[in-house]
Amino acid sequence: MLKLASQTPPGWAERAVASLDEILLDHAHCEKKAAGFAVTLIFQYPGHPELMAPLSALAREELAHFEEVLRQLSIRGLSFGRQQPSPYPGRLREIVAKQEPGRLLDMLLCSAVIEARSCERLGLLAEALPDPALAAFYSGLRAAEARHHGIYVDLACQIAGRDKTRARLEEFTQHEARVLDRAPTHPRLHNA
Amino acid sequence: MLKLASQTPPGWAERAVASLDEILLDHAHCEKKAAGFAVTLIFQYPGHPELMAPLSALAREELAHFEEVLRQLSIRGLSFGRQQPSPYPGRLREIVAKQEPGRLLDMLLCSAVIEARSCERLGLLAEALPDPALAAFYSGLRAAEARHHGIYVDLACQIAGRDKTRARLEEFTQHEARVLDRAPTHPRLHNA
Repeated sequence: MLKLASQTPPGWAERAVASLDEILLDHAHCEKKAAGFAVTLIFQYPGHPELMAPLSALAREELAHFEEVLRQLSIRGLSFGRQQPSPYPGRLREIVAKQEPGRLLDMLLCSAVIEARSCERLGLLAEALPDPALAAFYSGLRAAEARHHGIYVDLACQIAGRDKTRARLEEFTQHEARVLDRAPTHPRLHNA
Repeated sequence: MLKLASQTPPGWAERAVASLDEILLDHAHCEKKAAGFAVTLIFQYPGHPELMAPLSALAREELAHFEEVLRQLSIRGLSFGRQQPSPYPGRLREIVAKQEPGRLLDMLLCSAVIEARSCERLGLLAEALPDPALAAFYSGLRAAEARHHGIYVDLACQIAGRDKTRARLEEFTQHEARVLDRAPTHPRLHNA
């Protein structure tokens, strides 16, 4: 079901590589936030036992990626710390339903779309990075993001059925393309 | 530095084994909460890069334990779901400083004490359980809790120094003993 409604504009990856220190720090925050989001769902939906183990395994993998990006920062003599975040995840969540029914499906699809976009962009980074070791690192992470996208879509199908999931996913990918169109341009994984 | 100020009263483990279904569900929630607490610290203290990788690895291990306890529930035909929680972690946090300086040290020591008590009680469970497979499972987890206690104390020493950590840990273990003394008696890992 992975079909983003827009492609990342040409030149994004070159600009990202030119600001690699900022992108790496942003990426560490993104992995942290992805783990945090899966853990939040575990806390908010104990009444859905079928979500617990898949979300827990997913959170563990995001945390392992967080630690790997921390190592990449350290290799470059950079330190983890605060950074002005991209408005992307917040704007994406503007269309998440405030209540059930609908909220859980939307939360899962919101994550699915973020993983799909991350998958596209980490792939672009892998192609653009001159350092072969770092390119290989991003290529591996790209595959993980594609898998995570699939997990979120599968969980959404379990919760809401295939047709409803497909229809709502289409609304999310359209919304996501509009959010990215209006995103600021300073170097972030999920900016314009 | 692991010295709790009280011992679990005789009979606790026998009562726990007699309510094993409730204890297993409570234990799943405890592992989830332990992971959630480590992730919360990662989000709240990005300005302490030295905490990030150890807390992330710790959260991953707690999540793996959460999944293992979910499997134990499933083996017994039980399902994960909501449960009336023990007041223990909330009461323990009543003495956590509301602001820095002091709050981070207190948060780390609060977790250290919970891990120490969990270590004691999982050991008691391992001894009391008639099922050898489940006893071995709890024996393994007991060792992990002891390690986690040590990680939190080490991080506290890095943040606040050894003397300050030791003095404040003493206050936390005294407080924890009082909290347990007044805890309700229905079957939970951290009740009386």
